[in-house]
Order: sequence, then C-alpha cells, then structure tokens
Amino acid sequence: MRLFRCACHSGLSYWSNVARAPADVGGGTRALPRSGGPVDASVLHDLAAASRILADQGVVDAFGHVSMRHPSDPNRFLMSRSLAPALVTPDDIMEYDLDCDCVDAQGRGSFLERFIHGEIFRKRPDVMAVVHSHSPNVIPFGLIDTPMRAMFHNAAFVARGVPVFDIHEKFGATDMLVGNSEKGVALAEKLGDKDVMLMRAHGSVATGPSLPVAVFRAVYTEVNARLQFQTAMLAGGGNIAALDAEEGRLADEVNLKSSARAWDLWKRRVGF
Amino acid sequence: MRLFRCACHSGLSYWSNVARAPADVGGGTRALPRSGGPVDASVLHDLAAASRILADQGVVDAFGHVSMRHPSDPNRFLMSRSLAPALVTPDDIMEYDLDCDCVDAQGRGSFLERFIHGEIFRKRPDVMAVVHSHSPNVIPFGLIDTPMRAMFHNAAFVARGVPVFDIHEKFGATDMLVGNSEKGVALAEKLGDKDVMLMRAHGSVATGPSLPVAVFRAVYTEVNARLQFQTAMLAGGGNIAALDAEEGRLADEVNLKSSARAWDLWKRRVGF
Amino acid sequence: MRLFRCACHSGLSYWSNVARAPADVGGGTRALPRSGGPVDASVLHDLAAASRILADQGVVDAFGHVSMRHPSDPNRFLMSRSLAPALVTPDDIMEYDLDCDCVDAQGRGSFLERFIHGEIFRKRPDVMAVVHSHSPNVIPFGLIDTPMRAMFHNAAFVARGVPVFDIHEKFGATDMLVGNSEKGVALAEKLGDKDVMLMRAHGSVATGPSLPVAVFRAVYTEVNARLQFQTAMLAGGGNIAALDAEEGRLADEVNLKSSARAWDLWKRRVGF
Amino acid sequence: MRLFRCACHSGLSYWSNVARAPADVGGGTRALPRSGGPVDASVLHDLAAASRILADQGVVDAFGHVSMRHPSDPNRFLMSRSLAPALVTPDDIMEYDLDCDCVDAQGRGSFLERFIHGEIFRKRPDVMAVVHSHSPNVIPFGLIDTPMRAMFHNAAFVARGVPVFDIHEKFGATDMLVGNSEKGVALAEKLGDKDVMLMRAHGSVATGPSLPVAVFRAVYTEVNARLQFQTAMLAGGGNIAALDAEEGRLADEVNLKSSARAWDLWKRRVGF
Repeated sequence: MRLFRCACHSGLSYWSNVARAPADVGGGTRALPRSGGPVDASVLHDLAAASRILADQGVVDAFGHVSMRHPSDPNRFLMSRSLAPALVTPDDIMEYDLDCDCVDAQGRGSFLERFIHGEIFRKRPDVMAVVHSHSPNVIPFGLIDTPMRAMFHNAAFVARGVPVFDIHEKFGATDMLVGNSEKGVALAEKLGDKDVMLMRAHGSVATGPSLPVAVFRAVYTEVNARLQFQTAMLAGGGNIAALDAEEGRLADEVNLKSSARAWDLWKRRVGF
Repeated sequence: MRLFRCACHSGLSYWSNVARAPADVGGGTRALPRSGGPVDASVLHDLAAASRILADQGVVDAFGHVSMRHPSDPNRFLMSRSLAPALVTPDDIMEYDLDCDCVDAQGRGSFLERFIHGEIFRKRPDVMAVVHSHSPNVIPFGLIDTPMRAMFHNAAFVARGVPVFDIHEKFGATDMLVGNSEKGVALAEKLGDKDVMLMRAHGSVATGPSLPVAVFRAVYTEVNARLQFQTAMLAGGGNIAALDAEEGRLADEVNLKSSARAWDLWKRRVGF
Repeated sequence: MRLFRCACHSGLSYWSNVARAPADVGGGTRALPRSGGPVDASVLHDLAAASRILADQGVVDAFGHVSMRHPSDPNRFLMSRSLAPALVTPDDIMEYDLDCDCVDAQGRGSFLERFIHGEIFRKRPDVMAVVHSHSPNVIPFGLIDTPMRAMFHNAAFVARGVPVFDIHEKFGATDMLVGNSEKGVALAEKLGDKDVMLMRAHGSVATGPSLPVAVFRAVYTEVNARLQFQTAMLAGGGNIAALDAEEGRLADEVNLKSSARAWDLWKRRVGF
Repeated sequence: MRLFRCACHSGLSYWSNVARAPADVGGGTRALPRSGGPVDASVLHDLAAASRILADQGVVDAFGHVSMRHPSDPNRFLMSRSLAPALVTPDDIMEYDLDCDCVDAQGRGSFLERFIHGEIFRKRPDVMAVVHSHSPNVIPFGLIDTPMRAMFHNAAFVARGVPVFDIHEKFGATDMLVGNSEKGVALAEKLGDKDVMLMRAHGSVATGPSLPVAVFRAVYTEVNARLQFQTAMLAGGGNIAALDAEEGRLADEVNLKSSARAWDLWKRRVGF
C-alpha cells in the first residue's frame, strides 16, 4: 500500500512504491491508481498556502478548491481532501489520477467536484494549476449575456475571452455540481484554450501554467468582475475602453512574471 | 422553581423538575410553562455559536436572533435573552414555550420579537431552527416588487420562492415589530412552507431542519441578495439565468449536507 | 484659571472655579467663558467612546466629530480637541460655550467646524448630542434631488424627513466648512426640528436626545443610505415601500430604547 | 561605490561620496548618477510609512508605488525597490535621477514603471511626491467618457479636472506599462498642471506638494470615485451638485493643512 507522508517543514514527503490492493472506487471495484512519485514538502506547503490565500483574498468562502498537477507525473494531480479552504494544511493534500481516483485516501473524503480539475488537467497539458471558486462578483456574469472584458492590465488574461459553461445545456436539471467525469469533460470542452471560465449559477474556474499564476488569475478575475460591474453601470450603453486582444496578450506576458510579487505578499499574509 | 444550569464545557446542563409558582407574564397572571427537560451543554454551546457566527458573517449587527427547537420537547424552544448576538454565551440561553412565555427567566429580559420564532415553531413542525436578521443586502428586496431568485447553487433554497411579509397589511401602522402572538401568527402564515421570507422595511427570516442549515440559509440569503442586486443591474431588463425550481430542489439536497463544512469553519472563526 | 482634570477610570473630573483672565479668541479680545461645572469622568469616558465607536463603525475616518451638551449647564457643550476620532481619549475633551469659545483650551486646537455643534445646541434645547461626519454612503444623497427615506425600522428617524443644507445658497463659493457662527446658525436653521440633515458636497449631521441615540442615528443614517442606494437602483422608477410617517414615529420610539443594546456592543468593540 | 545605510529608528542614513564605476543601465553603458546627498532617516521612514498606508487604506494591493523628490536635490527622487507596498521598509528605499537610473541599486530590482515618477518630477517642479496605484473604484472612470468630479470637500483637488492618459493614443498596443522615459514623458505631458490623472485600463496617479498630501489625494481620489459611482447611479442623467471650481480651490487650501491629521492617524494604523 502506498504511504503519504508529509514532513512538512523539514524535508520531503513521499509515497512508498508498495503496490496496493484493488479497492472500491465510486461503484465498481478497480485498482487504485499508482502514485506519480514523491513530492517535495515545499510543493505541498505551497498548495496549502494557495488554498488559504484564496480564502484570505475573498475568492473562496467555505467552499471552493485549488489543485496542481503532480510535479513529476503529468497524469496525476494534487488537491486537498474535502475541507474548507482556509483550514487546509499540507497533510490534507491527496494525490489523484486524471480519472479523479485517489491514490491513497486513508479514509479521507474527496471533493465532489474534483472532476473539474481532473478533466482540465487531462485536456490541457499546458495547465499546471486549477482554481474553482464561487467568488461573488464573478457569478453575475455567468447569469447574463454580457461577456467579461479586461478592465485593466492585471486582468489581461480576460481579454482572450471568458466562456460560460451552463451544465443545463447538456445535462438538464442537475444539482449544478460537476460531480463525475462526464460533466468534467463537458466543462473542459467548454473551457477550450482559455484561461478562465464562468459556470452558470455556480462560479468559475481559473487556470495557469503555475500555481501562483492560477491563484493570481482567480483573484484578478474577481477584481475585474467588480470593476466591470461598476464600469458597465457608469457607461450605460456607452463605450468601455477595455483592453483589446493585443494589449491583453502583451500585458499577460508581464503578469506571468509580476504575479510572483503578489504571491510572495499573499503567502506572508496567511502566515505561510 | 426550575433551575437552568449550564456546565458548558464539561457536561450536561439541566432544569430541575420542581414545579414553579405562577408568575406574571405579559399582563395576566398565568402559570409559567414547564421545561421540556434537560438540554445537553453542547446544544447550548452550538446555539451561542450560531449567534456569534451570524454576527461574524455580517448577517446580524447589534440586533437579530437565532433560536432552535428544544431537542426533546417539540413544544419548547431555546433562545438567548435580549442581548447583542455577538455577545451571547451558553448561559444566556433561555427556554420558551410556543406562546413565548419563558420557563425560567431569572430576571433576564426576552427579545420583543420572540414571537417570530414561537409561531413558526408552532406552525412548522419540520422547522428546527429560526434566524431573524436585518442583513443589509436582503432588505431592499422587501421594499420592491422584484422577487428574490436563486443566483447560485448555495442559495438553492431561494428557488422555492421567498414571500414578503408586510406587517401593514393586517395591522396598519405599527412599530414594525412582531411583538405579540397575533403578529407572529400572521408572519408564520405568510411564510407557509417556504424556507426563507422577507419582512417589509424590516429584515428577513431563515429556517431550517437543523441549526447549521438555518444559519447556512441566513448567510446565503444575504449573499444571494447581493448577487441578485448586481445581476439585475447588469441585466437591465434582460434575462437572468437563475436556478430553476428543479435545479433548486436538487442543489438544496446537496446543501443540506455540505452546510456542515461551512458550519465547522464558521464555528472556528468565532472561537467556539 | 480653570483646571480640567480627568481621573478617567477612577472618579470625577472637574474644573476649578478660579476665574480666568481674558484671552484672545478668534480675533477680538473677550473674556473666556466660565465652565458649566465639573463633569463626571464617566461622561468624558462615554464621549471618547462615542468618538471611537463612530470610527469603528465606519461613520468617520480621519475627520468628523461628536459632541454632547454639558450635563449640568445647557449653555455649554463638550467636544474633543481637533484630533482624528479614533484617537480621542477622555483627556482630549474640552468645554465650549454656545459661541464655541473654549473654556480652557490649554493650548489645544479646536475643530474648525465646532459651530455646527454650538449652533444646534443653541437652537434645539431637546438635542443633547450631535455627530458630524462624512460617512460615504450618505454623501450622494446630498448631491441629488432624491430625498432620503427610511428603508427599515432602525432608521425610523429618517421618516421625519432629512433636509439638505447647501452652504452655497447663503454664502456663495466657500471652503465648504461651517467655520463660524453665522454659518452654524444657517445650518441649524435648515435642520429645523429634524433629527438628521445632509450637507451638500460635504457630509451630514445626526442629533439625539442622548449621546447613544445620536451615535445610533449617525450609524443607521449611513446604513440606510446604502440600503436606499440599492433599493432605488432595483426599483428603477418603481414603488419603494419605505416606512411611512406614522410607522417611522412608532418605530423610533422603540429605537430610543433599543439603541442601548447597540451602544453596549459598540463600546465593547472599541475596548471602552 | 556609494553606500546606502539606514539607521532607521535612531539617526541619519546617508550615501557616501565615493564615486562609482560606470554600470550597465537599461542597455547602454553609462555612468551611474551621483547621489543628491544624505537623507535623514525620518524621511526614509516616512516614505516607507506612505507605502504601507496606501496598502492599509486599500489604495494599492500587491502593486503600486509611491515616491518623493530628494529633499536636497530636485533632480533626484526616492522610491522603494520593486516590492509589494505593504512590505516596504526604510532599507528598501533607493535613489534615482530623473532619467530613472538608480544611484546605487546594490543588486536590488527597480519598479518597471518608475518613469511615471521621474518624468513627473522633471516636468513639475512643484510636485514633491507621486503615488501610482490601481485603486479599484478609480479604474472605471478611466474606461468611460464621464469625467471625475469632486463629490465632497476632501476631494476638492478633483475639481481642477482629472485628465485621462491613454497609452494607446501615442504608442498603440502595448503591455500598458509606462516602462520607459518616452512613455513617462507622454504621461507627464497629459497630467499637465493637474493634481491627479487616470490611466486608461490601468490605474491612476496622484501628486502633491508634500508626501502626506500626495497620499491624502490618492486616498480621496479612491473615496471620491466610489462616491461618484453611487451618485451618478442615483442621479440617472439628472443634476449632481458637485463642488464647483471655486469651491474646489478654496476647500483644497484647507485640505493642504488638514491632511496632516489624516497622515498622523494613518501612520499610527500601520505601526509607524
């Protein structure tokens, strides 16, 4: 059986290579996935920090989650057990394969909506981290016909376009949750090659080529939504001089670097 | 005389079974109600926590109150003495019958509007907890003709409909308070079988099959109101893709379980 | 010379009865006013608390002030020296006559706009405390033609009407400050018999028959303004079911008592 | 080589007068600028405080910066190394000439947008301090045709007019950053003789004849923007009784003095 050990503030955590017995996962009996290999404690530490940063920045409340691709195995990802984001510690991080089966749950519960993460990681090899949230200013834009636009350079990634995933289109009336692979596939399909996506009457998804960038985008998607609300109200039906596509592309290149400054500040704020 | 003892962090609190002498209650002299029996300290602790959570989450300020049905007697309920919600401790919890007479006040004052709670508990056997608040984003929806709708899955209970109680309809010009049984009856009548209700120029009521669910609904009624404000503004007169009734029903089933995650987080935040 | 001694946490503070020499006040040389007599330390303590409460509740920032009529001399009032409200201590409280001359400044600076307070105390014997603030949600209502209305029972005093004082009407272009008696008189005139008043492009004034009630009204004027903003936006031009005059009158009677609950909570929050 | 020593809480910091070797700056090799001379530690302390105040007041988040002209050399200015504003200490302050070359970087990174500061200091001898921020309520006014107006006396400086700098006008599609002298010149040109300026899809600039006044203006530009949003919404297309030009001029004279009260409070809040 694989072991998950987190030696959080001092060294490496790792999974042993002992094969595990098959286990019951989500109905049928199938073999538990093998681990993608040991993960440095600093990685788990950063992922827990990301979770707390999102809470501290008002992007998540009691709900929402963040994941990252396994550093040494692109077919695995890391994500907390089912827990309020503000409470996540490195010890709560679990490993999943892209079918969202847990490598070694040790009796801990998984987020129902981990399929958002697994299917995006499967479809988008460039994505290294995913945030799912219900950040409040963003939700209105998933309920109306007005598309999100980039109100300032920090939200430059918005200029590439923000699709809206409506689970009702393909699945009819549901509990709104992306609670299985089929729904995750449809969601990842709708995301396409974009960086962020709205989910109708639910929330949103932000992705990035690194954990800090995904967190940065989740935060500034929320900020941008509040800005766009105010701007749209003030503009009436008039012109809004948002970033155009090329400005967005150029500004996002800078953000990919400058997001490190935000990451450092935000980590400090949550005491990590 | 009945005793109310709270052994808050270590064991059970209880009322003795000694009969009490009649006392003056609300004008006429009538016998004080008998207690519904001893209540576990953890219950009182949770009710005090609920009060503080509502303050911490911005649902109540100096005013507002939360109650729960007595665990072993459906004709009794528990509620703090008249006190700002952020200050409530287990020792402040008192027991009432459904006429809102206090079992053993010990000289402590009662909330004027306890009749909101008593009459809902009388009319709605399924309701186990009631929150009354003036949470700010909700109040506007009690003053206009636009009904509240569910903007996202966490507020799924809104999809069942949110009536508006206007005390003026039946009682003319008043001090706006539900300060006697007759007004409480009218309010409970208007609530019908719904989960939440607005009170014109006053506030709102949220109910639930458990204390954590009632608190969850009070919090997300407030969140939903803010979301609907922004969404309605952005939509102009256009379409809003809110939860439909069936989506609301399905999503609320999930919330009944996932509200525990919020409850655990919120309790920690207030140090309970 | 009069002495001002604050024995804040233990007993009485008092002014000695020694006559003072004439001093230069605001230009001409005239005799300094006599003190209205010693003031209990708890009064000074409460006035400092009021100042900090207003800061804690977001009614004042670095600017704004609160005063109360002298407990034993209706022709004197108490007010902090010129200082950010969050920093006021009992030792900062000074005594003024209704001409706004300080009894014993001891070199400490006075607020430029103390004439707001002095002239209201002169014209309105029923007013025992005055708050002047620039609380943000209120300011817009001083700039437009829409009158404030009472959105809920806690703001019942608004139902009596909220006049707008435009300093430009009588004084033309100024620095907007009520910096002398003449301007104070015009302001008090416009207030008339109302409880609160807006000041165009500046802020507002709240009064009350006691210090806690004036503070309560300052807080709920701000809350009500935010509520009215949202309600007016949602209503479009449609009906708003605000408190009517009689509801306002009845609800305000309750507030005069229940404001004590808010006062107790707010004092605790600021550690007083 | 020049030394920068900060003896922050006890005395003077200074640069030695030893000439430095030429260094590579921004492409070509040119001589490093000479220092404008030693700077009192209290000055560095205040500039670090300004940075933290702007963060505490919600004007800057992880981004934004504040600078001041060198006290004894008008051709030099002081500014933090590239760092989140909430983290700046006196030791992080560096000296630049008006070409934005650093006197003695000691390997520390410079803000990309220091040219905002350098070119304003060059063009405007009356300006002693500059704040650049992305404060959220201000951004919408850089995206629409509605000019900012002064909603109350604390924002009196707005009454002189607030130009909007659109980097696209002269430079086409860019990363939106004022990252070289040419762009800084265009920005300073657009500012003209005004106190504050918006930057389209980016943020704003506030200036002042002293550090506290520039900070005061940055804070109240943000406050005023929120007020104008609400006022404009409530007014519909109707009249807004904003400060007129003469009222603005007169009120600003008062602010130049009263801003000290805000500065003292704000410094205390950040523990400086």
